[in-house]
Amino acid sequence: MNDLLFPTVGIAGIGLIGGSLAKDLRTFGLAGRILGWNRTPAHAERALELGLIDEALPTLADLAAQSDLLILAMPVDVLVRTLPALLDAARPDQTIIDVGSTKRALAEAVATHPNRPRYVACHPMAGTERSGPDAALDNLFRNRFTLLIDPDRSAPDALTRVRALWERVGAVLAEMTAAEHDRTAALLSHMPHVLAYALARTIKEAERNQALNARFAGGGLASMTRIAHSPISMWQPIFRQNKGPLLAAIDAFANHLAAFRKAIAEDDDALADLMR
Amino acid sequence: MNDLLFPTVGIAGIGLIGGSLAKDLRTFGLAGRILGWNRTPAHAERALELGLIDEALPTLADLAAQSDLLILAMPVDVLVRTLPALLDAARPDQTIIDVGSTKRALAEAVATHPNRPRYVACHPMAGTERSGPDAALDNLFRNRFTLLIDPDRSAPDALTRVRALWERVGAVLAEMTAAEHDRTAALLSHMPHVLAYALARTIKEAERNQALNARFAGGGLASMTRIAHSPISMWQPIFRQNKGPLLAAIDAFANHLAAFRKAIAEDDDALADLMR
Repeated sequence: MNDLLFPTVGIAGIGLIGGSLAKDLRTFGLAGRILGWNRTPAHAERALELGLIDEALPTLADLAAQSDLLILAMPVDVLVRTLPALLDAARPDQTIIDVGSTKRALAEAVATHPNRPRYVACHPMAGTERSGPDAALDNLFRNRFTLLIDPDRSAPDALTRVRALWERVGAVLAEMTAAEHDRTAALLSHMPHVLAYALARTIKEAERNQALNARFAGGGLASMTRIAHSPISMWQPIFRQNKGPLLAAIDAFANHLAAFRKAIAEDDDALADLMR
Repeated sequence: MNDLLFPTVGIAGIGLIGGSLAKDLRTFGLAGRILGWNRTPAHAERALELGLIDEALPTLADLAAQSDLLILAMPVDVLVRTLPALLDAARPDQTIIDVGSTKRALAEAVATHPNRPRYVACHPMAGTERSGPDAALDNLFRNRFTLLIDPDRSAPDALTRVRALWERVGAVLAEMTAAEHDRTAALLSHMPHVLAYALARTIKEAERNQALNARFAGGGLASMTRIAHSPISMWQPIFRQNKGPLLAAIDAFANHLAAFRKAIAEDDDALADLMR
């Protein structure tokens, strides 16, 4: 196998994350061949045009059958429905990873599956608000954390090679349980996305009421609403699957916002303390 | 005067905005000499070192006495206290502008001042979370709006030259009343800053409770909390002076956040509509 960690890598979902991984796999010589499949066939064709993949396969089953490493970069609702069937068909030497943003539902869906050890749950904490193969970036994972979830549930050979893959693309690894992951992701990613969506909607409504020309905004608003451009088809299932931790994170934020509101309303010296 | 709009420009407060204006004034040949004064003398010295200003003056009164155009880039609480006295001493050919983020309190403080026409209220909708002379940037104002507030209260000669100055540094001008300005700024800038501070505090508290390692965060959180690094000494007076519109903007946001919370809690199909 020489320098190739995996002779054939299959990527299901060749968008921002799948496409960026494809770029790095090639750059760092971690794959012999890179195959792709996408639910939207136009994206697979575009990924082929861009040279992200060597071949686009017609079905996910075809992709899985040919892949030594199968990377699932799909919305988390699709993952929960799809992973058990892919494990049914998994070969003893095959490794399957996902890069989804929620883990508990997925962990529960495969907890008792006899082929569970062939699966390694991963969450690279990297991305942008863009999507599709044209959003793929070189070195997206470099110096960013990739979280490995419940690693003790994976086979040692699979885990070793998946760890090596992430390290070779420059990621910093950390391990945690699915429950810890979902609470962490709720606070650091999912709740901030809800705030961005709610802020974008607040501004849009004020514009509709003609109270406002949003073109006047400086860089602060753009920076706060950037991630509200993330695709709904990806984020709605995340919010649904991580409902409990997400609601807790929203409530924690709402309490802090209420404290700021009170300090502003009462012209309270506590305001400076809150800002510190 | 040739190409020099103002033979001598004085800048009170040579930080991000004052320093960036100094850079552009020089680049575009809009000032003969640039004088500076800063409440923190070390900042004035640093501005001199950086070549932002030609000379640092010991007092604001000295600066005002020597300036054809006096630019006030100071916290808004200082502005309200300072502008009336500066207008007291204003010469008939002198122009004074401010670049503060709230305007109603300032407008009221000078509404009946006999020298009110020498003052032009400006708000460039540009900036970063950084502060001090080292934060100054070239072309900070290019293609960004600068709002001119209550321009009919300014003398035509002062207004004409201030408009020309902003246009020469590439700003796009828009006009509005002080009340419109403060409502606009509350929605587009002040409330988003409160959200950033409250979000940063939520994450810090979760970290303190050891529920979280915030180093795991991806780019989304960084983007949402960037402006929470803005200096408190500048932002607390903004929040205080713009209390009414700011509380209304916070409440508008809180209502939208509550709608998202409800849709997430109830697994409601309305969620996708809210996100759109």
